[in-house]
Amino acid sequence: MITTSEMTETDLSIFESLESEVRSYCRSFPTVFEKAKGYKLWDTQGTEYIDFFSGAGALNYGHNDPVMKKTLIDYLSGDGIVHSLDMATTAKEQFLKRFKEVILEPRNLDYKVMFPGPTGTNTVESALKLARKVTGRNTVISFTRAFHGMTLGSLSVTGNAFKRKGAGIPLSHTVSMPYDNYDDNVDSLTLLERYLEDEGSGIDLPAAIILETVQGEGGINVASSEWLKQVEQICRRWDILLIVDDVQAGCGRTGTFFSFEPAGIRPDLVCLSKSLSGFGVPFAVTLIRPDLDQWAPGEHNGTFRGHNLAFLAATEALRFWETDTFAQEIQRKGKKTRSSLEQMIGKHPDLNGEVRGRGLMLGIAFSGKGFAEKVCAEAFQRGLIMETSGPDGEVAKLLPPLIIDHEGLEKGLAILEESITETKKAL
Amino acid sequence: MITTSEMTETDLSIFESLESEVRSYCRSFPTVFEKAKGYKLWDTQGTEYIDFFSGAGALNYGHNDPVMKKTLIDYLSGDGIVHSLDMATTAKEQFLKRFKEVILEPRNLDYKVMFPGPTGTNTVESALKLARKVTGRNTVISFTRAFHGMTLGSLSVTGNAFKRKGAGIPLSHTVSMPYDNYDDNVDSLTLLERYLEDEGSGIDLPAAIILETVQGEGGINVASSEWLKQVEQICRRWDILLIVDDVQAGCGRTGTFFSFEPAGIRPDLVCLSKSLSGFGVPFAVTLIRPDLDQWAPGEHNGTFRGHNLAFLAATEALRFWETDTFAQEIQRKGKKTRSSLEQMIGKHPDLNGEVRGRGLMLGIAFSGKGFAEKVCAEAFQRGLIMETSGPDGEVAKLLPPLIIDHEGLEKGLAILEESITETKKAL
Amino acid sequence: MITTSEMTETDLSIFESLESEVRSYCRSFPTVFEKAKGYKLWDTQGTEYIDFFSGAGALNYGHNDPVMKKTLIDYLSGDGIVHSLDMATTAKEQFLKRFKEVILEPRNLDYKVMFPGPTGTNTVESALKLARKVTGRNTVISFTRAFHGMTLGSLSVTGNAFKRKGAGIPLSHTVSMPYDNYDDNVDSLTLLERYLEDEGSGIDLPAAIILETVQGEGGINVASSEWLKQVEQICRRWDILLIVDDVQAGCGRTGTFFSFEPAGIRPDLVCLSKSLSGFGVPFAVTLIRPDLDQWAPGEHNGTFRGHNLAFLAATEALRFWETDTFAQEIQRKGKKTRSSLEQMIGKHPDLNGEVRGRGLMLGIAFSGKGFAEKVCAEAFQRGLIMETSGPDGEVAKLLPPLIIDHEGLEKGLAILEESITETKKAL
Amino acid sequence: MITTSEMTETDLSIFESLESEVRSYCRSFPTVFEKAKGYKLWDTQGTEYIDFFSGAGALNYGHNDPVMKKTLIDYLSGDGIVHSLDMATTAKEQFLKRFKEVILEPRNLDYKVMFPGPTGTNTVESALKLARKVTGRNTVISFTRAFHGMTLGSLSVTGNAFKRKGAGIPLSHTVSMPYDNYDDNVDSLTLLERYLEDEGSGIDLPAAIILETVQGEGGINVASSEWLKQVEQICRRWDILLIVDDVQAGCGRTGTFFSFEPAGIRPDLVCLSKSLSGFGVPFAVTLIRPDLDQWAPGEHNGTFRGHNLAFLAATEALRFWETDTFAQEIQRKGKKTRSSLEQMIGKHPDLNGEVRGRGLMLGIAFSGKGFAEKVCAEAFQRGLIMETSGPDGEVAKLLPPLIIDHEGLEKGLAILEESITETKKAL
Repeated sequence: MITTSEMTETDLSIFESLESEVRSYCRSFPTVFEKAKGYKLWDTQGTEYIDFFSGAGALNYGHNDPVMKKTLIDYLSGDGIVHSLDMATTAKEQFLKRFKEVILEPRNLDYKVMFPGPTGTNTVESALKLARKVTGRNTVISFTRAFHGMTLGSLSVTGNAFKRKGAGIPLSHTVSMPYDNYDDNVDSLTLLERYLEDEGSGIDLPAAIILETVQGEGGINVASSEWLKQVEQICRRWDILLIVDDVQAGCGRTGTFFSFEPAGIRPDLVCLSKSLSGFGVPFAVTLIRPDLDQWAPGEHNGTFRGHNLAFLAATEALRFWETDTFAQEIQRKGKKTRSSLEQMIGKHPDLNGEVRGRGLMLGIAFSGKGFAEKVCAEAFQRGLIMETSGPDGEVAKLLPPLIIDHEGLEKGLAILEESITETKKAL
Repeated sequence: MITTSEMTETDLSIFESLESEVRSYCRSFPTVFEKAKGYKLWDTQGTEYIDFFSGAGALNYGHNDPVMKKTLIDYLSGDGIVHSLDMATTAKEQFLKRFKEVILEPRNLDYKVMFPGPTGTNTVESALKLARKVTGRNTVISFTRAFHGMTLGSLSVTGNAFKRKGAGIPLSHTVSMPYDNYDDNVDSLTLLERYLEDEGSGIDLPAAIILETVQGEGGINVASSEWLKQVEQICRRWDILLIVDDVQAGCGRTGTFFSFEPAGIRPDLVCLSKSLSGFGVPFAVTLIRPDLDQWAPGEHNGTFRGHNLAFLAATEALRFWETDTFAQEIQRKGKKTRSSLEQMIGKHPDLNGEVRGRGLMLGIAFSGKGFAEKVCAEAFQRGLIMETSGPDGEVAKLLPPLIIDHEGLEKGLAILEESITETKKAL
Repeated sequence: MITTSEMTETDLSIFESLESEVRSYCRSFPTVFEKAKGYKLWDTQGTEYIDFFSGAGALNYGHNDPVMKKTLIDYLSGDGIVHSLDMATTAKEQFLKRFKEVILEPRNLDYKVMFPGPTGTNTVESALKLARKVTGRNTVISFTRAFHGMTLGSLSVTGNAFKRKGAGIPLSHTVSMPYDNYDDNVDSLTLLERYLEDEGSGIDLPAAIILETVQGEGGINVASSEWLKQVEQICRRWDILLIVDDVQAGCGRTGTFFSFEPAGIRPDLVCLSKSLSGFGVPFAVTLIRPDLDQWAPGEHNGTFRGHNLAFLAATEALRFWETDTFAQEIQRKGKKTRSSLEQMIGKHPDLNGEVRGRGLMLGIAFSGKGFAEKVCAEAFQRGLIMETSGPDGEVAKLLPPLIIDHEGLEKGLAILEESITETKKAL
Repeated sequence: MITTSEMTETDLSIFESLESEVRSYCRSFPTVFEKAKGYKLWDTQGTEYIDFFSGAGALNYGHNDPVMKKTLIDYLSGDGIVHSLDMATTAKEQFLKRFKEVILEPRNLDYKVMFPGPTGTNTVESALKLARKVTGRNTVISFTRAFHGMTLGSLSVTGNAFKRKGAGIPLSHTVSMPYDNYDDNVDSLTLLERYLEDEGSGIDLPAAIILETVQGEGGINVASSEWLKQVEQICRRWDILLIVDDVQAGCGRTGTFFSFEPAGIRPDLVCLSKSLSGFGVPFAVTLIRPDLDQWAPGEHNGTFRGHNLAFLAATEALRFWETDTFAQEIQRKGKKTRSSLEQMIGKHPDLNGEVRGRGLMLGIAFSGKGFAEKVCAEAFQRGLIMETSGPDGEVAKLLPPLIIDHEGLEKGLAILEESITETKKAL
């Protein structure tokens, strides 16, 4: 455990004086990080932290994967081209070929690959634009507690009131519908379909429905396969495009490369980013059903669509997906972790804890106001990095690197349990 | 010169079959790039190209600057933390300190630094959001031929009709006014001020005015210092925020670090990206007048705000700005290049060429439809990378790396001259 | 019954050649009307019609009420001022005084009276504007199948897809929620409240909720008193303004002057028009909770706010409300009519008819596609004017004048029954 | 002149306590009007006023025209149908026939007639809807200082900032361009055309341009015939619909029935209301180029589209247009009045008065803040009703009834002159 005296030695003054007030995680984790490897981080004072956060899902393969690292160093050493806009490069060529071989073909998926700019919000904005352009319709349906990004288009399909206010203008052309299990009294898809078939519903026929199969920022809410299939059927019936935002839930986080694989659905557009590069460098793609690829050349562009370090690392990351082993490992670890969490909350029935999630995208929802936040603060004091999610920060979220070993997982879970106990004592 | 037979050997099939139709530059430069150094690129067949494009302004310091490269390799080798969201890291700390010392303090500028996500459109969206939030107003005034990005908010202040149509929905909350010298019959700022002071103008008092001091994508249109000063005065008089989008014109491109320095204006918000990282990796900051930094923690966020490779390279890039030498060199090269361009078009008065630009952000506008595009195609055949800009692609644009040497500049200009002559012959 | 040969003698050519294609009722009732009195109309050929339509609810007191008529003739004869903008006139003074004495005071209602222009859409637009202005919020919640008017603001809170498309632009700043009994699987107010209390719902806190207590155009859908009370409580809890659009359901149509009286609610804003003038001349008022009357002078205006013929007739119409007798009569006739309708559909169980409504705002919903329309066409052939409503025109709507006598009601109902029987035969 | 003691006897308390704060003209003219005939009004105390306001242009034929009055009384006495939605009636038939014979045919105009609801804002909204629907475009271009109405669509094309704020939401889908002579430094149509032909202007190709040929509320600004012709040419060149809002300037106010006749243009859509009924009762039509009449039946509707008293009076009003005499009379009176106004301001060069207008739509703009308002207040004290217009109320507006006789005009002008002199003295 880090003592208070050590903490105070960390000098955060440059951040406090020069960086914008918008900074947030550095407030929850008030230290200066320096090194990282696998599932561990170290700050400038040499304190070690176990990572149950994984860069909000951007580090599924852990920090500084040695194979990727070597590839990047070799490439840099050989003066490989680093920035190339959307020109053809060997690094991009390899990524495209490997992505097709390792990801698309084995899953019988036929998509065109768009590089929309290197972040999650870039891919979401590109998908929304294309869906509206192709259908000639304006409205996009999103779901309660959705999180899709911070630029104007993505923010319009994001549920969080606090984030929405940041727009400074009314957010338009969207309709928010209840997510799976949002409310016991509402059968969300019955209502949606009712709206669509009723010429008097006031809901204009949408261009697209956009969803996360597991809502990360929204509080680790899991949509059932049945619900996802019904959404897909509604889309087919009404000729609505289905966009799966797999930015956080994709790249193996829930146990399969795409989070929608278990549901057996086939989205029209898929958004990938975060862990796609495998190394934590900015990267995103939009996957497009071929007949929908109606972009004119250059109709959407961006300076950092050709980030070759990302192409390289992402290509290396695909090695994890050549066989089923990695997916099975994630699922095994997921079950194990889930079971540990169930045990933990079983010991504290008064906390009304609820375990949520799928694969290694997990969380405990606590009913006590501010409880989850305190648990995470206690965990940090003990060397574990975890964050909250949900509209009121009511969920302690676990996103350990998928490559975490037995020891790391156990150690992290032990700290979490201790943190819950300590937080409860302090009530 | 690359022969046609060589060209056909390049296999672009994977890009054609798998990458979205939205790809564009790879159509103008149909080869596969592999390596790059300084102002040169090489494709897989070993053909060498001189770079007069610089990644659309993202490579002002050339490709693979050796000092930055060494820093990155060392950092990677030592398992420095690569991805850190908005947590404090040593790499970020150094960037903040150096940026303050080398850039802000010597220019007497007092700004808070926001990391809004790593691309140009992220910084523009963050500036628009903050301006609207702080003022409580909706409208933002932009200018004809402006280019600010492809996500919904940035696209709303972008002039290009083709790009705007990509949104699929009407773009709102913005007013487009004539840029400096847009039309000989319109005194653009007189009209703007008339609108503002007239309670019956139908133009709502705006939150902000956003502008580029030199419009890159819009056709290398240069705003005079006098015009910029007047815009600033209008902003002050009406309590409107002034946002300078220095994504393309900044980082030395026009001869000073910020493009607005010669005009002596002091924007309330500044958007930087493209060459900010120095190495072509995604990076952006939004500079905020301290009293406007009214963000709540986390009100705007994003996964790739903490891209430490970018912090490192960006910190190294600041070495160019420790003295005035680099700026003077850019200005000297700019004058020299401009003079060469003037000579070139002087030899072909029938082409009605017009040299435009400032510093090393230059272009020749040709009146003949498609002429500039053909010149760039000829240049590529001769080993020079150049692109067009302007609403009809009527401008052959020159953005050589600022670090280009005498030989490279001369060689590139010679190819350009030859390309113009050849294109004219083929008319 | 009118024979076909007679019908063909009616010359509608001037309407067909000169009037816009937008005309509609003249297609359902293809004759030229000339005179009207009480519950009867006559066309140019002297054919008599019983009116079960009452000008879509604008003629609750029947055609050409003799007292109002005399007042108007006397006023005109005496050169009373007819058009006065929003200047003070004796006619307006009398209306204000009487409206206060006869309507507001006995019901313990304290409202400021706004004259927003003489039509339903004028009053709705004024209420929406004021609600947004006073609260500083943008969103207004309306309900499925709502009908509030055809101008842009009112159309945005109208559910009908066909009407909405007429706008030619996306309709914004509104959220459509399920009306009472919209769907058996959805507890509409539970969902609404869930949305409001959830900071992640994606539904921005609204300025107002607008509703009709009985939806006329939407298909004679009746909200229960319990539901209305709950809506009011939600409004109070969240500081949302409650707007009751009583344009069609008000002025006694449902059995009390205001349709919301039985529910015991107290809307913040009330919209009245249609039968308010009593004589079928254009007139509307917006009733405003006094502390919300934050208009600046002239902030909303309009040429026909001072239609003195309407003030006069409306003042006379208030005589019906001096005692409870008229309300009791409406309720008695309503019950009687409802019972007749129940009997009618009881005879044809295969038609799946459903009686709907409250007071003398009644309808029969038929499940057969186009059945209700055919019934109304048969009724017209037999001398009864009735129209359909509902998103698919599935409801045969009964809006007889409230002053209709026993004979008229019986005669109309007999024709309706005959029309149902005939329509069924022709299936 | 009314003495102060008399004034105080007028009891306005019911208006002050019960009517909304939005009331405005009753504040400028604080008395209770009772009777009116021709160009005269009388209040309850018998004070006589000369009307130079004509109900903001709704009483071009004066108050209580005896022929119209008799027609209305006879119709009412005979129980003619008063309210008929959009059903065919004899009154409507006569109006359509006569409008075609007297107005459309002699002017070689071929329009379909739409009854969009009885007010100016109804006709404007219908024209905007149809233009957007037919073209499939969103943007409508309006002009600085335009006034088109108070409902959301009309307000979006209205220039006045104070009125716009009343919307409570941002007004969208419109672009405001400089009106003719808006600013000496701006050639407004050159700029407009520049915007349209420039693919980078940021102005989306509009559905329509809407304009008033003389802006009434905007300050009696007159567009030249040359300018109107150029606007029409621009519309033809770019396939943009031209909407002339002739609500205030039409029906003879400027010297011809349609205000656009002298310019020789042929709008695609024309909005008429105000004086159309001739008697001050609510009435409006939208004239539609036949091939644009693409409404589906009922796609736009409204309760008071069939206001038969308006049809009757409007038909009678057409008698004024059977020969050229009335138009010539208006023009003669207009010239005479203008000349008187020129003389008046000639006597007070220090007031910087500027005479504006066309026909009998005239005004004097005064540069002194609040001067025009004081002049009108003085005039009222002397028995003359006049109002101000312009964004700062800087114009004393003259809209005498077109039927005013020599004596009335002279008397009114004498009071105006006296009022100017008195106001100046009090400075």
